[in-house]
Amino acid sequence: MDKITINTPLDMHLHVRDGEMLKNVMEYSSKPFAGGLIMPNTLPPISSREEILSYRKRIVEAIGDEQFEPLMSIFFKSSYDYELLESIKDLILVVKLYPSGVTTNSEGGVLSVDLDEVGETLSAMEKLGIPLSIHGETNGSTFEREAEFLPTYELLAKSFPKLKIIMEHISDRRTIELLDKYENLYATVTLHHLTVTLDDLLGGALKPHLFCKPIVKTSEDRDALQNLVLSGHKKVMFGSDSAPHPQEQKESGNGSAGIFSAPVLLQGVVELFDKNGKLENLQAFLSDNARRIYELNPKEKLVTLEKRNFTVADSYGGVVPLFAGEKLSWSLS
Amino acid sequence: MDKITINTPLDMHLHVRDGEMLKNVMEYSSKPFAGGLIMPNTLPPISSREEILSYRKRIVEAIGDEQFEPLMSIFFKSSYDYELLESIKDLILVVKLYPSGVTTNSEGGVLSVDLDEVGETLSAMEKLGIPLSIHGETNGSTFEREAEFLPTYELLAKSFPKLKIIMEHISDRRTIELLDKYENLYATVTLHHLTVTLDDLLGGALKPHLFCKPIVKTSEDRDALQNLVLSGHKKVMFGSDSAPHPQEQKESGNGSAGIFSAPVLLQGVVELFDKNGKLENLQAFLSDNARRIYELNPKEKLVTLEKRNFTVADSYGGVVPLFAGEKLSWSLS
Repeated sequence: MDKITINTPLDMHLHVRDGEMLKNVMEYSSKPFAGGLIMPNTLPPISSREEILSYRKRIVEAIGDEQFEPLMSIFFKSSYDYELLESIKDLILVVKLYPSGVTTNSEGGVLSVDLDEVGETLSAMEKLGIPLSIHGETNGSTFEREAEFLPTYELLAKSFPKLKIIMEHISDRRTIELLDKYENLYATVTLHHLTVTLDDLLGGALKPHLFCKPIVKTSEDRDALQNLVLSGHKKVMFGSDSAPHPQEQKESGNGSAGIFSAPVLLQGVVELFDKNGKLENLQAFLSDNARRIYELNPKEKLVTLEKRNFTVADSYGGVVPLFAGEKLSWSLS
Repeated sequence: MDKITINTPLDMHLHVRDGEMLKNVMEYSSKPFAGGLIMPNTLPPISSREEILSYRKRIVEAIGDEQFEPLMSIFFKSSYDYELLESIKDLILVVKLYPSGVTTNSEGGVLSVDLDEVGETLSAMEKLGIPLSIHGETNGSTFEREAEFLPTYELLAKSFPKLKIIMEHISDRRTIELLDKYENLYATVTLHHLTVTLDDLLGGALKPHLFCKPIVKTSEDRDALQNLVLSGHKKVMFGSDSAPHPQEQKESGNGSAGIFSAPVLLQGVVELFDKNGKLENLQAFLSDNARRIYELNPKEKLVTLEKRNFTVADSYGGVVPLFAGEKLSWSLS
């Protein structure tokens, strides 16, 4: 096949930051995608009705004339009660929970994910039908953080059986088995966790532009994630976790976590499915699963890619992208 | 104890590079140490009698008036025969073997460490009494590289029972047990593998100045190495693997491996032994074990440290050191 058209591709985990960076990077998502779930860990995090509305307004301005639906979220706080959540339900798709300190701008996150601290808010979300999105890592040893969080996923899934829980950007093969164990657990998977390993990050020279949370893992984890998404699993959605940081910040003595993948996402995902002879499952991963899980009905946007070499630029708007300088075999038409 | 004097401290694994960098960094080793084993992986690597002599001359010039004995080495090549080795025996302490591609400037190293390729040279070294120094890693997955190399250490130890083999900068707790299994295996341990873990490297922000080969490992590995050196094990020597790279190179999109620890070595090692109440084993680790293993008889140099706060500078000669900006509790007098 030399061309492929994706119906209404959605990026269900997207950081676009704010201010100048938002203006710099928005187009790399708004052109190829029909919509995206915008993460709330700006500085300060989005945590009120007013902040959602004003952040959405700035995003819509940055989108300009493109057809792109920004699906909003709010930063989980255990102070949110039923009334507050009810009052913002129409504005958000999820509440995003960060354990404190696990990634960029998560300092204000919850100190513990136990039911004493978060139970009341989760119970209100369950009643209101608002899904919970989680960055599922502990503060333990880097490569074990996601695995150490699995009992918490299980506890939440069991305690709130009607609450849809999205395990975001899963990276560890041990997480996968939970998907079929609990009806209310879902997952997003990024392009970089499908293609990059820790040996790419630090096996040769150190590559700060491949540094992210959760950290990329072994080739066994990458392969297990590939098998999961290529199989067309119904509970797995594409979410890029694309996260722009200025080049000079990433290439410093104190580099931020985050991979800017927006400019290469559809090309990279199509290449993966094509190389593995699984193009028949592409539409489900890039759109249909998210629409069904989140009960979305986005305006149709057809995006066509063709089999033509695409050389990734070294930098987009001052941010070094995933696959910088590399050649991919699919291009946006 | 408020003061401690070390008799003739030796750094048995030291990179000082060449040219301007050599001039920049030599003093940080030559002032506190009585001598050091200089690694040969310059560009190009030191691999002839003439190169040893001229490199030694440049080092002696950089040392100036300080009392410091540069112990030289040559970069292992399987083309070295008995005659060549005999002709350089008086100039070198070890032959240093790098598997190709495992660290900075190791591209010319041996492609495989099997006896077909390296056996003849090792046999000549054994006959001549020249110890073998090895960077023991495979090209496998980053955190397994040293463990994967252990069968090679065993093969070499068994095949050449009279050859002294130094397992350099050991980093993995699985390596430790080999020390007591083979009489002819010895080890060096760095300060950074005794104090830094992968969580320091990438558990929070990415810290390129803590990036090195072998990569720093888990807290269990660090603790096992601490227990080993604090116990005063007779086959373990201090070797810093201090390796200077310009700050702008380390803080780039393609950062070199190597930690510049020279300015903090004695302070850091003394602090470790002091905090653990093991100062009685300090002298063995910092000098006596190396003198006995290598049959060295260096000129005495007494180096005194006192318990007084030492704030590590952010940069020394354009290179960011280990513990940059941190406070240590011991200072050079």
